[in-house]
Amino acid sequence: MSEKAVGIDAMEIHTGTLRLDLAETYAPAKDDDPGKYTKGLGLFASSFPDVYEDIVTMGANAARRLLERRGLTPADIGRIDVATESSFDNSKPVSTYIAGCLEQVYDEDFHHANKGERKFACISGTQSLDDAYNWIRAGRNRGRKALVVATDTALYERGDPGEATQGAGAVAMLISEDPDLVELSTAQGYGSADETDFLKPNQQFPSVDGKRSVQVYLARMREALMDYESVAGDTHPDDFALVPFHTPFPGMVRKAALLGFRHVARDTEYEDRLAEEIGRQPRREAFDDVGAFQDALSEYTDALAETDVYRDWYAETVEPTLELSRYCGNWYTGSVHVARASGLLEAAEAGRDLAGARLLVGSYGSGAQAEIHHETIQPGWADSIRALAVKDRLRDRYDLSFEEYERIHDAHNHEKETDVDALTTPDGEFVFDGWGRMGERKYRYV
Amino acid sequence: MSEKAVGIDAMEIHTGTLRLDLAETYAPAKDDDPGKYTKGLGLFASSFPDVYEDIVTMGANAARRLLERRGLTPADIGRIDVATESSFDNSKPVSTYIAGCLEQVYDEDFHHANKGERKFACISGTQSLDDAYNWIRAGRNRGRKALVVATDTALYERGDPGEATQGAGAVAMLISEDPDLVELSTAQGYGSADETDFLKPNQQFPSVDGKRSVQVYLARMREALMDYESVAGDTHPDDFALVPFHTPFPGMVRKAALLGFRHVARDTEYEDRLAEEIGRQPRREAFDDVGAFQDALSEYTDALAETDVYRDWYAETVEPTLELSRYCGNWYTGSVHVARASGLLEAAEAGRDLAGARLLVGSYGSGAQAEIHHETIQPGWADSIRALAVKDRLRDRYDLSFEEYERIHDAHNHEKETDVDALTTPDGEFVFDGWGRMGERKYRYV
Repeated sequence: MSEKAVGIDAMEIHTGTLRLDLAETYAPAKDDDPGKYTKGLGLFASSFPDVYEDIVTMGANAARRLLERRGLTPADIGRIDVATESSFDNSKPVSTYIAGCLEQVYDEDFHHANKGERKFACISGTQSLDDAYNWIRAGRNRGRKALVVATDTALYERGDPGEATQGAGAVAMLISEDPDLVELSTAQGYGSADETDFLKPNQQFPSVDGKRSVQVYLARMREALMDYESVAGDTHPDDFALVPFHTPFPGMVRKAALLGFRHVARDTEYEDRLAEEIGRQPRREAFDDVGAFQDALSEYTDALAETDVYRDWYAETVEPTLELSRYCGNWYTGSVHVARASGLLEAAEAGRDLAGARLLVGSYGSGAQAEIHHETIQPGWADSIRALAVKDRLRDRYDLSFEEYERIHDAHNHEKETDVDALTTPDGEFVFDGWGRMGERKYRYV
Repeated sequence: MSEKAVGIDAMEIHTGTLRLDLAETYAPAKDDDPGKYTKGLGLFASSFPDVYEDIVTMGANAARRLLERRGLTPADIGRIDVATESSFDNSKPVSTYIAGCLEQVYDEDFHHANKGERKFACISGTQSLDDAYNWIRAGRNRGRKALVVATDTALYERGDPGEATQGAGAVAMLISEDPDLVELSTAQGYGSADETDFLKPNQQFPSVDGKRSVQVYLARMREALMDYESVAGDTHPDDFALVPFHTPFPGMVRKAALLGFRHVARDTEYEDRLAEEIGRQPRREAFDDVGAFQDALSEYTDALAETDVYRDWYAETVEPTLELSRYCGNWYTGSVHVARASGLLEAAEAGRDLAGARLLVGSYGSGAQAEIHHETIQPGWADSIRALAVKDRLRDRYDLSFEEYERIHDAHNHEKETDVDALTTPDGEFVFDGWGRMGERKYRYV
C-alpha cells in the first residue's frame, strides 16, 4: 500500500434521447410564464428516456462508450458499482444487468468483478466513487480499474410541483490509479441527519416537501463543509477553480453557492475587500438575540449577492458547472457528476489552464446527507473531458410535444400498462427488449 | 496509510421475537412429513418479526446493544452501512432511520457519519463489511469505527416452495483497527454473473427458480474460490478452522461444502489418504468426453460424502456454522454473518483454542455473486463472541400457532391493510410507531 493518486480517469454521459422544452412546450401547456422555469429554476429543457431506454440501457451505453474510448476490456475492470434510486428490483442489482449487456458485445466476461448497488437519493453516485477510491487505496484492485455508473429516470407524478425538474440519464466513470481527469482527496466532510424531505415509500414517484427539502440541502451542506474544514483546514475562495454542487435545479445551487461563499470568505481578504461596500459579516457574539443576528445575516447575504466581487467569483467558479444541467434537468445520482463535467467542459472550451487546480465538490442526497471533498485537476484533464460528446447528444435529442411527453411518462410508469411506440430509432446501442418468464427485464444490442 | 489489521471487532444479533416451529406447527398444517424440513432442509424453526418489528427496529436494537456493550457513543462511529433486500423506500436509506432511532437514546448525534445502503440479494452485508474495511485501510476513518447492519425480513409469498426457509433478523457488526474478533484478509475472490435465479421485480416477495438457484450458488462459489486462490495461493483443508457459508438453508451448505472440500483436497495428502477407499479424483484430461468425466466425478463425490475423512472435516469445520441457522431460518444479508457467529460460538463453547486460526468465508447473493475471503481469529475472540446472548433470545421467542403465523405474515405484507395485535410486549427496545404524513415510518424507544 502506498499513497497512490486515485481518482476519475475518464467519464461518459448518456442522455435520454427525448427532450422536453420547458419554455416552448411545458410552460404553454401548463399556462405558465416560461420565466418560472428558465429564470426561477434556471432550467430550459429536460431529458427523457424513449420507450426502449431505462436505467440499464443508459448506464450500459455510457459504460460501453467509456470502455471503447479507453481501449479497455472486461478483464481491466475489477468492480462495477451502480448508484440509482430508480431500481426496478428489490433484490437483483442493476450492475448485473449492465454487466450482462456489456458481455453481449465483448468476448471476455466480468465474472471476477465485484458488482454492487447503492441507494441514498442523489448522493449514492459519490458514495460509489468513494467505495472505488477506498478499494484501490486499500490495495485490493490487482491493477484493475473500477467502473461507477450513476443512472436514474428522475420522474415525478404528473402535476407534482417537481415535474419541471425531471430528467433521465447516466454518468459512467472510470476510477483508477494515476487518473487523467481528477485526483480525489482523502479528506472529506459529512453532514447527515434523519430527515423527511423527499421519500419514495414503496412507490416509484417521490413525495416531496419542497420547502423543507431546500432547508435541509443547505443545512446538511453547511455541516459537511465544516466537517471537511475540520480535516482539510480552513478554506479560502481562491482555493477552488470550480465548485460543482448537486444540482436538483440551478436555482438551488444559486442559494447554496451564496451561503458557501459567505462561509468560505469569512476572515479572508474577501471579507475585507467587501467591507467598504456592504460591511463586515455579522457575528453571533455581537448580537443579544438570535433573531436580530439572523436578520442582520440575511441582510448581509442579500447585499453580498449583488456585489461584483461575489458575482465575478460565481460567474467563474459555479456558473460553468450549471450549463449542462440547464438543458438536461435533474438526473439524481448523476447530477453532481454532470456538474463536474459541465464545469470542466466549459473551462476547457474557454481555454482555462486548470492542471493542478482544485475543485470543491458538494454532493447531496435527500433523507439526508451532504458530502464535501476536493479534487485536483490532472495534466490530461482537457483532452479527457473534451472527448465527451455530451453537447452533441443533448442537441440531437428528439423534441417532444406535450402530448408525446404525457405518453412517454405513462410508458415509464410502473403502475400503467401501456403500448407506446418509440419516437426514435436506436442504433449501435443497448435497448430494452421485453420481459422474461420470471419478470426480469431483457436487453439486446442493436 | 499503514498495513493496519482491520476486521470485525464485535457483533450483535437481533432475532425477530416470534418463532414458527417447522416440525410441530408448519409440517402438520401443510400435511407434510416433518423430516422434509428437519432432514431435507436442515431447519427446525424460523424467526418472524412481531407487528411492531421491522428491518429498522431489528437493526437499531442490534446496533444499540453493540454500542452499549463496547461503551461507544455516536462520536466513535464514522459510518453506518445497512445491507438489506427488504427496503421499504426507493430513495431514503434504512441507515438514516436506524441512526434516527439511536439518536433518541444518545445525547450525541451521527451527523458526521457517512450513512449508506447496499442491495445485492444476500451478499450486500459482506459488501458493506468490505466497504468499511477499505475505508479504514484507505486512511479515511479518523480513528473512528464503522457500524455495519445486515437486516432483513426474508418472507416469501404464502404457499411458495421457499416458505419454509423464511426468517427475520439483524446482525450488527463493528469494524475497526485492531479488532477483537477477526481480522479480514486483503485477498478476496469473486464469482459473479448476470443470472435469473431469484428476483423481486417491483415486488416484495421473491420469484424463485429453485433448481437454478442451487446450480448458480454452486457455480459462482466455485468461481469465487478459484479467483481467491489466484490471489491467496492454493488452499488446503487444514488451512481453515471453520468455513461459514451463506446459508439459505443448511442443506444447501451441505452440497457446497462437499464440492468445496473436493476442490481444496485435490493434490493434497487428503486425496492420497482417501485414494485407497474411493480412488483418486477423476481428472478431465483422463476422459475422452465430458459426460463420462462428469459421471465419474459425480460418483467420486457421492463416495467422498460417505468417508470418515470428509465427515470428520465437515463435523468440525462446517457443522458448527449451521447451528443458529437451523433455529432461525434464512436472514438473507445477515445469513453468512450468523453462520460465522454460530461457528465461533460453538467453538468457544467446546473450548477450542482458535486464536490465530483462520476462517474461510463464502458469501453469496442471487442475481448472482459469490465472494470468498479469509479471516484470522484474534486473541480476544472467545470473550467477544460469548457476549452474544443470541441463544437465549432465540429460546425466548413466542411460539406461533399456524393461524397466528398467517396473521403475522399478512401484517408484514405491503399489499395488505391489516389490523393485527402484537403477540409480545416490547421492553427496552425500538418499535415501529405508525406512519407520518409523507408516508414515512416512525419509531420510538419503549
